[in-house]
Amino acid sequence: MEKEERRLASMERIKTKPCAAIVGAGRTKFGEHWYESPERLLMIAGEAALESVDHGLRRSDIEACYFGSFLYQVTNKLGLVPGYMARELGVNIPMTNTEAACASGSSALFNACMGIMSGKYDVVLVGGFEKMSDRFSKIVDNLMFAGDAHEFDAGFTFSGLYATMMARYIHDYGRGNRRCLEALAQVACKNHHHALGNDYAQFRREITVEDVFKSPLIADPIRLLHCSPVSDGAVALVVVNQEVARKYTDTPIYILASQQATDDVSLFTRESLTGIRATKLAVSKALEQASMSPKDIQIAEVHDCFTIEEVLFLEDAGLFNRGDGWRGVYESFESFKGSKHIPYIGDFGEIIVNPGGGLKADGHPVGATGLRQVWECFVQLRGEAGGHQVSSDKPLNVALCHNIGGTGGIATVHILARDL
Amino acid sequence: MEKEERRLASMERIKTKPCAAIVGAGRTKFGEHWYESPERLLMIAGEAALESVDHGLRRSDIEACYFGSFLYQVTNKLGLVPGYMARELGVNIPMTNTEAACASGSSALFNACMGIMSGKYDVVLVGGFEKMSDRFSKIVDNLMFAGDAHEFDAGFTFSGLYATMMARYIHDYGRGNRRCLEALAQVACKNHHHALGNDYAQFRREITVEDVFKSPLIADPIRLLHCSPVSDGAVALVVVNQEVARKYTDTPIYILASQQATDDVSLFTRESLTGIRATKLAVSKALEQASMSPKDIQIAEVHDCFTIEEVLFLEDAGLFNRGDGWRGVYESFESFKGSKHIPYIGDFGEIIVNPGGGLKADGHPVGATGLRQVWECFVQLRGEAGGHQVSSDKPLNVALCHNIGGTGGIATVHILARDL
Repeated sequence: MEKEERRLASMERIKTKPCAAIVGAGRTKFGEHWYESPERLLMIAGEAALESVDHGLRRSDIEACYFGSFLYQVTNKLGLVPGYMARELGVNIPMTNTEAACASGSSALFNACMGIMSGKYDVVLVGGFEKMSDRFSKIVDNLMFAGDAHEFDAGFTFSGLYATMMARYIHDYGRGNRRCLEALAQVACKNHHHALGNDYAQFRREITVEDVFKSPLIADPIRLLHCSPVSDGAVALVVVNQEVARKYTDTPIYILASQQATDDVSLFTRESLTGIRATKLAVSKALEQASMSPKDIQIAEVHDCFTIEEVLFLEDAGLFNRGDGWRGVYESFESFKGSKHIPYIGDFGEIIVNPGGGLKADGHPVGATGLRQVWECFVQLRGEAGGHQVSSDKPLNVALCHNIGGTGGIATVHILARDL
Repeated sequence: MEKEERRLASMERIKTKPCAAIVGAGRTKFGEHWYESPERLLMIAGEAALESVDHGLRRSDIEACYFGSFLYQVTNKLGLVPGYMARELGVNIPMTNTEAACASGSSALFNACMGIMSGKYDVVLVGGFEKMSDRFSKIVDNLMFAGDAHEFDAGFTFSGLYATMMARYIHDYGRGNRRCLEALAQVACKNHHHALGNDYAQFRREITVEDVFKSPLIADPIRLLHCSPVSDGAVALVVVNQEVARKYTDTPIYILASQQATDDVSLFTRESLTGIRATKLAVSKALEQASMSPKDIQIAEVHDCFTIEEVLFLEDAGLFNRGDGWRGVYESFESFKGSKHIPYIGDFGEIIVNPGGGLKADGHPVGATGLRQVWECFVQLRGEAGGHQVSSDKPLNVALCHNIGGTGGIATVHILARDL
């Protein structure tokens, strides 16, 4: 077959069929886990994911594993995750460990989808983990491995890189406007509010805009409460070929799109400090793959490592025009303050972002985060989120997960749906 | 379609079609590269691979990248390889970085094949690199990340783990037999001999059995000349859907099999110290996938990180019975000493192992090694190996690459062929 024909056939298949389906999901609480090893955290999540499969799944049904983690070598003196997990799971199957900084977890899922789509596997286990509190941890230094080596040598901390982006955003779009600063604090307040009912979340307490303004300065203009925390935790998913999904559960969640894009690791070579090209590309490819527009997305798990990043997402995804994201945040927050979930409202309709608390409040064990986002959407779409379940007039059907690595050197986007 | 039917159809497809084809390959010299950054080494290899494509290939033709490296974080203070390579290549495509200790390179290729087989990509760039000489390098400590954390804490070095395996092998199968010790030295002598004509090799000088015996003791019974070296280097391959391969070259090399297996990271939980289960599984699955027997393999690139590992491979792959590998080595070496390449001869016929010098003499920049093995087979099968070209009565057609991580926590095997 000619390349073009094959490509069209393949596009057709990709467009009309989901990449894969999720039939189980498990996680640990996020927070400090001083007495668990990284591989043990991953096993706790993995066992929870296997046990969550409604009609049962044996370990021997798993044909391959895909893991993601970021700093396990420097922070935990650990390498060769496949060898650890072969031992812990008692299996000898193929295993891949991916590192993509804060997008390590979603990068594992991206490759797991490829494994399913290749026809080689029907059932795979996907896991992400990070144990940041450890005897070897020098976390501020180590997190700069998500930045560029020149930036590291120049003295930047990782917070400093996002502070540069936030400062430029305020300079370009909100100078002299206190509401812009308030909006950049409200993102954190909203996500803390959303986490109140989330049993797994690291922080389950309200914070106010004033709390954010009064919190210690980390890297001007970023203050402590603009930042996601240092966390330990793990998440695992059971991902299967969609054609066998109903063997395992009556309510599989389908992965309609799995897309990834990359960009320069370094801020100083980017065309813009106030937009993430990799996000733009990955979101638009994912919407195309799912044949959807932003209007179709009901909930989104968005990478709010620092609050500025959630605002950039709103603009990168086309929900608000460039520079208007903070206005959207401000108006939505003022309108819906006090309701269980605080949606963003705009021309696109309504979207609830980070219904479980996001990186900010649920926690950010780096390599687990991309899969924690998928876990959140999985339980939300199945109506199993308990205390943080989104209640909606029309049934929840479509969710988007957005995970980025570093300051945007990579972005992975997955679109999930309950019904095809 | 029912799972079993789909699996059979998929098996059929996998059995009758190659996974992918290689149309270009490039590498750096292996050795010390103090003045090149890791990403620059990878770019040198990548550019060489792109330039090697006979009918031309533009950077914009590349649809995804798969990279492998092991110690880039601890040794080079580098993370998020996709972000670096997006900048260096000037592209925004999906990129995956895999870590599987010494099998990181082959793990990248394993996943690249999955990407091709999924139908999502026609053309991908695969790269492996390691820069072990660096200002931050504490290489003896860092290499233990390929072992188990308990073994690390117990005081093992990585050489010490292989010394344990070698000591047990000698205890079980060669106690009191000087020829066994000689065979374990001859592996190194053979591989140094093979590297004499290899322009890219780190060591291009003969060594003798006496040289090995007199070299410094590293971890009894392992001496310096039983060990592969500390190296810098990178390798890259252009891998395409086999159906479009002839657009890029008249002599593609087909990947007939791509298989991986895992085992416990720790020696102390394995069932045997004198055999690598992951190798056994990956070789047998690969031979099945290619519908071949060991007799069909003409050349093999084998993971000789320490000479004992090449002997274990010969037994794990079923070329010699357990415990007889060293006899095969001894007899072959004594028979063919002095010829350009020294084959192993046995009931299986004849096989030339590590025709370019193996890890021992070509060098072992960890993350690059798995792809260096494929590079070697690519140039050998195309008759383009120059000074280290294997000359054979019948044309070279089939090669096997065997790459392991750690002490056998993971093994990846690829079978390549010039003709289908």
